[in-house]
Amino acid sequence: MKAVVFGGTNQLRIEERPIPVPGTGEAVIRITTTTICGTDVHIVRGEYPVRPGLILGHEPVGVIAALGDGLEPEYRIGQRVIVGAITPCGQCFSCLGGSHAQCGGPLGGWRFGNTIDGAWAEYLRVPDARANLAVIPDSLSDEQVVLLPDIFSTGLSGAESGNVRVGDAVAVFAQGPIGLCATLGAKLRGAALIVGVDAVPERLEMARRFGATHVVNVREQDPVAEIRRLTGGRGVDVAIEALGRQETFENALRSTRPGGTVSSLGVYSGKLVAPYEAIHAGLGDQRIVMTLCPGGKERMRRLLELVAHDRVDLTPLVTHHFAFDDIHEAFEMFSSQRAGVMKIALTPQAVGELVAQRVTARAFRQ
Amino acid sequence: MKAVVFGGTNQLRIEERPIPVPGTGEAVIRITTTTICGTDVHIVRGEYPVRPGLILGHEPVGVIAALGDGLEPEYRIGQRVIVGAITPCGQCFSCLGGSHAQCGGPLGGWRFGNTIDGAWAEYLRVPDARANLAVIPDSLSDEQVVLLPDIFSTGLSGAESGNVRVGDAVAVFAQGPIGLCATLGAKLRGAALIVGVDAVPERLEMARRFGATHVVNVREQDPVAEIRRLTGGRGVDVAIEALGRQETFENALRSTRPGGTVSSLGVYSGKLVAPYEAIHAGLGDQRIVMTLCPGGKERMRRLLELVAHDRVDLTPLVTHHFAFDDIHEAFEMFSSQRAGVMKIALTPQAVGELVAQRVTARAFRQ
Amino acid sequence: MKAVVFGGTNQLRIEERPIPVPGTGEAVIRITTTTICGTDVHIVRGEYPVRPGLILGHEPVGVIAALGDGLEPEYRIGQRVIVGAITPCGQCFSCLGGSHAQCGGPLGGWRFGNTIDGAWAEYLRVPDARANLAVIPDSLSDEQVVLLPDIFSTGLSGAESGNVRVGDAVAVFAQGPIGLCATLGAKLRGAALIVGVDAVPERLEMARRFGATHVVNVREQDPVAEIRRLTGGRGVDVAIEALGRQETFENALRSTRPGGTVSSLGVYSGKLVAPYEAIHAGLGDQRIVMTLCPGGKERMRRLLELVAHDRVDLTPLVTHHFAFDDIHEAFEMFSSQRAGVMKIALTPQAVGELVAQRVTARAFRQ
Amino acid sequence: MKAVVFGGTNQLRIEERPIPVPGTGEAVIRITTTTICGTDVHIVRGEYPVRPGLILGHEPVGVIAALGDGLEPEYRIGQRVIVGAITPCGQCFSCLGGSHAQCGGPLGGWRFGNTIDGAWAEYLRVPDARANLAVIPDSLSDEQVVLLPDIFSTGLSGAESGNVRVGDAVAVFAQGPIGLCATLGAKLRGAALIVGVDAVPERLEMARRFGATHVVNVREQDPVAEIRRLTGGRGVDVAIEALGRQETFENALRSTRPGGTVSSLGVYSGKLVAPYEAIHAGLGDQRIVMTLCPGGKERMRRLLELVAHDRVDLTPLVTHHFAFDDIHEAFEMFSSQRAGVMKIALTPQAVGELVAQRVTARAFRQ
Repeated sequence: MKAVVFGGTNQLRIEERPIPVPGTGEAVIRITTTTICGTDVHIVRGEYPVRPGLILGHEPVGVIAALGDGLEPEYRIGQRVIVGAITPCGQCFSCLGGSHAQCGGPLGGWRFGNTIDGAWAEYLRVPDARANLAVIPDSLSDEQVVLLPDIFSTGLSGAESGNVRVGDAVAVFAQGPIGLCATLGAKLRGAALIVGVDAVPERLEMARRFGATHVVNVREQDPVAEIRRLTGGRGVDVAIEALGRQETFENALRSTRPGGTVSSLGVYSGKLVAPYEAIHAGLGDQRIVMTLCPGGKERMRRLLELVAHDRVDLTPLVTHHFAFDDIHEAFEMFSSQRAGVMKIALTPQAVGELVAQRVTARAFRQ
Repeated sequence: MKAVVFGGTNQLRIEERPIPVPGTGEAVIRITTTTICGTDVHIVRGEYPVRPGLILGHEPVGVIAALGDGLEPEYRIGQRVIVGAITPCGQCFSCLGGSHAQCGGPLGGWRFGNTIDGAWAEYLRVPDARANLAVIPDSLSDEQVVLLPDIFSTGLSGAESGNVRVGDAVAVFAQGPIGLCATLGAKLRGAALIVGVDAVPERLEMARRFGATHVVNVREQDPVAEIRRLTGGRGVDVAIEALGRQETFENALRSTRPGGTVSSLGVYSGKLVAPYEAIHAGLGDQRIVMTLCPGGKERMRRLLELVAHDRVDLTPLVTHHFAFDDIHEAFEMFSSQRAGVMKIALTPQAVGELVAQRVTARAFRQ
Repeated sequence: MKAVVFGGTNQLRIEERPIPVPGTGEAVIRITTTTICGTDVHIVRGEYPVRPGLILGHEPVGVIAALGDGLEPEYRIGQRVIVGAITPCGQCFSCLGGSHAQCGGPLGGWRFGNTIDGAWAEYLRVPDARANLAVIPDSLSDEQVVLLPDIFSTGLSGAESGNVRVGDAVAVFAQGPIGLCATLGAKLRGAALIVGVDAVPERLEMARRFGATHVVNVREQDPVAEIRRLTGGRGVDVAIEALGRQETFENALRSTRPGGTVSSLGVYSGKLVAPYEAIHAGLGDQRIVMTLCPGGKERMRRLLELVAHDRVDLTPLVTHHFAFDDIHEAFEMFSSQRAGVMKIALTPQAVGELVAQRVTARAFRQ
Repeated sequence: MKAVVFGGTNQLRIEERPIPVPGTGEAVIRITTTTICGTDVHIVRGEYPVRPGLILGHEPVGVIAALGDGLEPEYRIGQRVIVGAITPCGQCFSCLGGSHAQCGGPLGGWRFGNTIDGAWAEYLRVPDARANLAVIPDSLSDEQVVLLPDIFSTGLSGAESGNVRVGDAVAVFAQGPIGLCATLGAKLRGAALIVGVDAVPERLEMARRFGATHVVNVREQDPVAEIRRLTGGRGVDVAIEALGRQETFENALRSTRPGGTVSSLGVYSGKLVAPYEAIHAGLGDQRIVMTLCPGGKERMRRLLELVAHDRVDLTPLVTHHFAFDDIHEAFEMFSSQRAGVMKIALTPQAVGELVAQRVTARAFRQ
């Protein structure tokens, strides 16, 4: 099968690999759509360590192609599924304790494109499939669901971990795809005032579509001062950090009221510093909460329900389409944030080929 | 001043009373708008005990007319305010423990029209005013905020106490004003599937406007069976009871999945019965949560923020307008649910008089 | 192997059965100690439906005798383990959502002696063993841990689900084994005032050893009045029901302050009734929470830690010892609460035989 | 009256001041016992800004000497009371929102010896007395309760904010008075493994008395490595920082498992740094929670209940006694941690004088 492989720092290669075979409790899915994530950019740039030779990608949409022992009759060949970026086993001490993303140890739930082969291939082997395969309702297209496995699950978790409550004031620092989903998450949890912060006008415009009641362009305004002003001097109840930089973290902390929460989603490449006055000498009753993406099929089922009942529409974020063969162009565009790209739908074949294939697939399912 | 007084079972009288004078920590507000609540119907019918001679009404919108010691400069004469139906002191053991509605003892936070004179009068004395006066933003009209003190605060609390989470399936039993606000509350907390249940087509239609993704007319369908079908046999995560009858409570319980929650808002006039099989012999990990209306100025501030930032619009519920002089007609219409009435805006004067008065009031404030 | 089999209402039979063989992901353990539970009494009396022919018992202590595929090297033959009465799969929607006891559907996590063969046999097949085998520290004896799988996990959960907080006032209705563990649970969560309620002086005496600061004998005092008196008229923050009868449930509700919680552990054989005044017409901000026993290996690990660090000593509850061959005498004693029995340690062989066997087992492990 | 006044950096003066007079809602209490806190050391050293001329001290035990309007009949002259170090109003937005320590704004609930005159005087004016006076049960001595207003309330909150659960593994960094109370708090919330960390053998010995199951002397062992070893490589569920230094904070973070919580109680004199690997690049699902001392009479009531029911005995911490006249010696001993001092009971008169006074006081109350 065709696969996009990490070849070492700044190297992505298209290689031919054998189609994986499912072991007990595993499934193999034929990938129909996947995407590129900011974390993949970290990996390719060598900022987050992954072993060369691994197939990257952790946001799979596909069709069940093969099932290992123990998965029938709950699942059957031909079902359309998504799988979370995080694939917990459900059975270790961490999972049973509710810490699914830390399955088996630190970050252990993140396996695709990190410790095992990922979704940038024609086929993907899914471990602990019983805990991870989420069937897609027939009414939903690949593009409606491709952002659920990571971007939306992570963004929403920023609002959840921050415990945003109905009527809260919330600020979201950075309005890339995850920040936009955090903005949407704040809206979904009933925040009243939602301030989107970024430096790119197009992203601030998108922030309004995703629920921001106010936006702040950091090139034009001091976000901390502006948030203070908007909240009558009080500060927000919850500030969500969605970039992974000291500056945004610090601004989030300074924007938060005493007793409030900074909910951090970013992947940091260095230490975090909390200034003395921003933590009120340690006496401000503040919380700092960091969250990796929630996964597992129950999480995916909930997110699918939101899309199916028209509570969430993520398709405006899918701005471009590429086939695996064009991964270099896609990756370059995404990592340089060129051409107004937000998220790229990545498919094994070019779109023309796909249409033909879908016709076949439908025939197959009938 | 003019006041609507409870005269004993099935008696409402318009009386002339002295304008109240504020004691220390108290305020007197001139009522501009108030409304009739289902609880008032219970009282007038003699189903909930209140002493004759009391001015009824617990949903005040008004203007500060007089301030007792200790309230300036935080407050000043002429400010427009709402006060919650529940007026906690903030300083007793219950309040400091977070149980504000049970201020000082069972139901102790509910004072207006229950243990002290209420809002159906030209002037209202507000106890513990520092904890209870919430200033209305200039941009909001009386009708936009008159349902916040009770109906919306109560309805929303049904979703909050039930701990509705993003992606949940929720059913709301009865779509009167509180049930509709519970439906809206479920939406505000991010529910995916929201089933509105009632017997009146107009109310089910309104339920869709307030966030229901599905509606069930109990005259046409068995709600428990239909909710099972809509949730794939699983049951809802949270069922909200918004009527106060055994039948709706029981249906709520039977509609809820194991591990789920029944959130009860109704005022019951008898015992509650939980059938054996509906509680799985006590082993179904279910919760039953009952909630009185949250009050206090911080609660009101949060609800005002929701209106100010266009997250909530309750004006479709205000279907009729009456002056105090027409209380008998208003009460009869409301209690018999005639003429498609949802909520009635009740004002000291008829609307024509009010326009003149508002001009004067504005002049006064400048 | 020898097994104690449910033969229909009021029938227990000792039968010879084949030793089970583990499938994929399953383990077989050789039972060294188990016990009789109040639920078993319900089953034998025909009050809770279980199919005749099933081996009963759901509280296993044993030694791993055989391992199916996928369990090594985490587990190995010869390890001493306990398994919770509830054996969640960890991978279904309920489990991934945190509702492990309702695994796959209502009460689905309770399998041993309910839907599959249980622990009253020389060998026990454990489903989803990766999620359920908890290794016993060498320092702990069978009798120190045999009450963890059900009695203590359930009793403690009464305090946990009731959200007992440090400084709370708590009442526990009924001081049988589960009630005593609930009393201990209240103490472990930091309750200040703990009132144990029962009709048997010996059980009230034991209640004091398990943490009760006060006891009430219902034959001598009205528990509701006495609890009101002890709490200065306020009522308890949390009342735990540990019997499964209308009377104790009702007393629990009447003893609870507005804003408080009734945490119910009992297995009911009929409907539950909440009187009008006890729920303050639905307006008392009360919660009723029902809990089945938490299971899974992480739960068991935590409970083992409590015993290993001397926070919990349950051995005073093990008042009698019987071998499987004497099950009829054991069952009669337990179900009639004769001879001061609290819990019975049930072993495949009589104690004399066991000593010899243990010597052999130790030799085997070296 | 006699008062101990902050005279600027490193200056404490005994001065004669007028006895305060209570305003509306205020009380004046005659101090019988108070104590010196680590925060006072920060203030006197000039590390935390307080205006010269202020009477210091925030841990009052006393007798009601005068009551302003609005406090009778709930309170009466002659009642023995404690008042929390934090005195919330209960009626502002922060208090009504549950953030009592941040009453009115950052750290606003901390008034005694910070923004208004404190407890190191013969008489103390108590603001918002209805929310803050907690009557001491007759059975309890001053020394049994003098550590409740701050030290124990703060220490316990470390375990509460960290959400220590039954069966958790907890490490407490620094075993001064607050750390010891945090250790006790971890025990009260049911932790299994509790590791006390300090450099002073006497404090580690005391840690065992307060609930530590293990102790680590940082002069002899690397605490992070030792905690890893004690938890089988896993890390603790909750680490409590009780000193206010970068080193202890960092060790706390490194000792905590993914998904765990660092609960910080220390008063920091500079920024906080979270190293990259200790936060797993932001992806470890960790929480950092900072807590100021919870106050108000409901909090004090709960703590008094714990002492009254023998769940807590803090008297071993009161190692020395001094009169106000000896404040310089007392302060020097406390701040230099000389002579095995833990906490000092500070009284207006020397102990001999006090005995005579108590006889008088009792006569007065009869």
